[in-house]
Amino acid sequence: MNAEIVTVGTELLLGNIVNTDMQILARRLSDLGISLLHESTVGDNRERLHDALRLALSRSDLVITTGGLGPTGDDLTKETIAEAAGRKLVMHEESMQHILSYFKGRVMGETQEKQALIPEGAVVFKNSVGTAPGCAVETNGKIIIMLPGPPSELGPMFENEAVPYLMQKTQGVILSHNIRVFGKGEGQVAEMISDFTDSANPTAATYAKEGEMFVRVTARAETAEKAEELCKPVIEAIAGRLGDVVYGIDADNLEQVVVRELSARGMHLATAESCTGGLVAKRITDIPGSSAVFEMGVVTYSNEKKTQLLGVPEELLREYGAVSEQTARAMAQGVRRLAGSDFGIGITGIAGPDGGTEEKPVGLVYIALDDGTSCEVRKMNRPGRTRGRDSNRNMAASTALDMVRRRLQSK
Amino acid sequence: MNAEIVTVGTELLLGNIVNTDMQILARRLSDLGISLLHESTVGDNRERLHDALRLALSRSDLVITTGGLGPTGDDLTKETIAEAAGRKLVMHEESMQHILSYFKGRVMGETQEKQALIPEGAVVFKNSVGTAPGCAVETNGKIIIMLPGPPSELGPMFENEAVPYLMQKTQGVILSHNIRVFGKGEGQVAEMISDFTDSANPTAATYAKEGEMFVRVTARAETAEKAEELCKPVIEAIAGRLGDVVYGIDADNLEQVVVRELSARGMHLATAESCTGGLVAKRITDIPGSSAVFEMGVVTYSNEKKTQLLGVPEELLREYGAVSEQTARAMAQGVRRLAGSDFGIGITGIAGPDGGTEEKPVGLVYIALDDGTSCEVRKMNRPGRTRGRDSNRNMAASTALDMVRRRLQSK
Repeated sequence: MNAEIVTVGTELLLGNIVNTDMQILARRLSDLGISLLHESTVGDNRERLHDALRLALSRSDLVITTGGLGPTGDDLTKETIAEAAGRKLVMHEESMQHILSYFKGRVMGETQEKQALIPEGAVVFKNSVGTAPGCAVETNGKIIIMLPGPPSELGPMFENEAVPYLMQKTQGVILSHNIRVFGKGEGQVAEMISDFTDSANPTAATYAKEGEMFVRVTARAETAEKAEELCKPVIEAIAGRLGDVVYGIDADNLEQVVVRELSARGMHLATAESCTGGLVAKRITDIPGSSAVFEMGVVTYSNEKKTQLLGVPEELLREYGAVSEQTARAMAQGVRRLAGSDFGIGITGIAGPDGGTEEKPVGLVYIALDDGTSCEVRKMNRPGRTRGRDSNRNMAASTALDMVRRRLQSK
Repeated sequence: MNAEIVTVGTELLLGNIVNTDMQILARRLSDLGISLLHESTVGDNRERLHDALRLALSRSDLVITTGGLGPTGDDLTKETIAEAAGRKLVMHEESMQHILSYFKGRVMGETQEKQALIPEGAVVFKNSVGTAPGCAVETNGKIIIMLPGPPSELGPMFENEAVPYLMQKTQGVILSHNIRVFGKGEGQVAEMISDFTDSANPTAATYAKEGEMFVRVTARAETAEKAEELCKPVIEAIAGRLGDVVYGIDADNLEQVVVRELSARGMHLATAESCTGGLVAKRITDIPGSSAVFEMGVVTYSNEKKTQLLGVPEELLREYGAVSEQTARAMAQGVRRLAGSDFGIGITGIAGPDGGTEEKPVGLVYIALDDGTSCEVRKMNRPGRTRGRDSNRNMAASTALDMVRRRLQSK
């Protein structure tokens, strides 16, 4: 099955927003084994939308439109598609009730009702987040799926309504799991598991994401149970081969795993950050419920504060410098004592763009993890012209989180 | 002049990346007064790229391609365009030298040389970041511009090479300035300055960006001086009308302005964060050179640490609660004293999704700024169904930074 996306919205052609809908759909279509060969964007213009639809239907089996389902006069997608498919627009009672209940107690413009109109005979997709329903229409052996523009509405609707619909059409169930990896690059992992990435069902695909990578394993079967059965041995085999760089299956990120693992053990973590400037604390507290494991963090940007707040000896700073294994260790120990926590993290380094020397270049960061009996220090050294301050800071923070994760998971 | 973008890259159709190039180009084309009416994406496939180009040239005066200029066999854009325009590919000596110097001291694959081939007679655009040059070709009264795929290369190349080229074609110079605003929404500002947004030269357009907004003023004239002359009174008039919600002209963000203003005065800031969990410290230390104004921040997530580290009285926490004006004030005062800095920020609130009550709902945050003689506290209260933890935290951090900015700029 070949697919094509028609994105509708003048705001995209003005550059007001970026087309995240396309990425959401492209990823999932790829998982589903549906080839996406074209995407085109047109504004809220009936004639150009009509031309784009005609072209799409001439070359693709499945056409997915995003946007143009709203209540205003600019929203033309359903009208244009109904016309192209030779259907009338009819009122969908359930959607109308949904819209009315959404506006209960508030003023509702008359045009809101327009959103409940759908092409006659269409399969209606519920909108669990907003008001405009989506739908699917079959015409001349082709499928047209209409989805709302806002990614927060499109994502759930595609997942919960359109995917089951498509699975019915292709007869089957599709399931994915993500193997999250920190500490190996996408290229390296792709090579290590090339025998899996060539397979058709389940498929295994590698993705890079902000200094990390993950492997998505997707299976298609008649039932969810059978799809899970197909996935399971492949996930185990890949995770086993990759070893301890795998930090979680279906985890969102390192901080989520760290908060979960600490929480399960009733343990606490404290952070002392220099070059990362609070990024580790920020990432930990991004996670709802992190207050159970994180009480305190400090950002000591100057030498003086490292001494005053964390008790890093002045002599040590003089002898080895603020960016040194010794200072990272003293910061981790200092903050652990200050917080009375199980673990202390200490990070000191040169994030750039300035401040680097021959001996201590930009990108050099020491990361220490102290647990009261032992203190591990890692040196991160990644001079390279394409990496900037943000990247250095993010990689240092991820390394710190990964050190905690490894310590906990190895116990 | 009508424009169209042809995006080339299988990775977009697989959903591996999002099409940020399109947004970069769409914004600037809009500034330039060039109407972008279509965008289409095709994979690294000669036939489909050829069809997309033919269609684009049939309906648009200017066709901009992004991607497919690299060294691998997948990179087909220049070959396909040369063929469509009836040109040979020839070696561009200067680009070749640039590529050779880029790889100096490292191994360079033979295929890298392919990047220096350009369609005969093309105007070459230098790549200041990477290796692949871009170029422009004129054919049958139409212009085709080829740009590299990575946004970090495309952005500067479009700005520094393609815009001047286009200005030559349309005879003139184009200049933009951004008026950055915090504390008023895009809709509100758009209404306030509607007389300017209707004007043709200079144009004024409003943009929303992560809880902030900005107004871009763009003028077109024969020379840069004349364009600046056109911009100046409009910028002054808009900034004057918007008043003190304007935090900077051509500033990148609030933290940059805060670091700059503190730096200019030789002043220091310290932060005590609860619900923002280090986000303010992180944003300040995002700015290179922030070590001159920021020595210390603490994240006190628990009541105990607020008392231990910042000296927030236990009675006060008992009487008013951790999320209160009184606690925010005590945190700001406490961290200012601890750091011995000019300013202290204290933030405490309920970021969500849990932890809210009838009396203290999710989204309630108190933000205090203490300077040793007076302490100002702002209450942020934004219950609303679409806003989440990240948004609440970010808005609280921005409010804190804006309070510092206002204090400094009013002095």
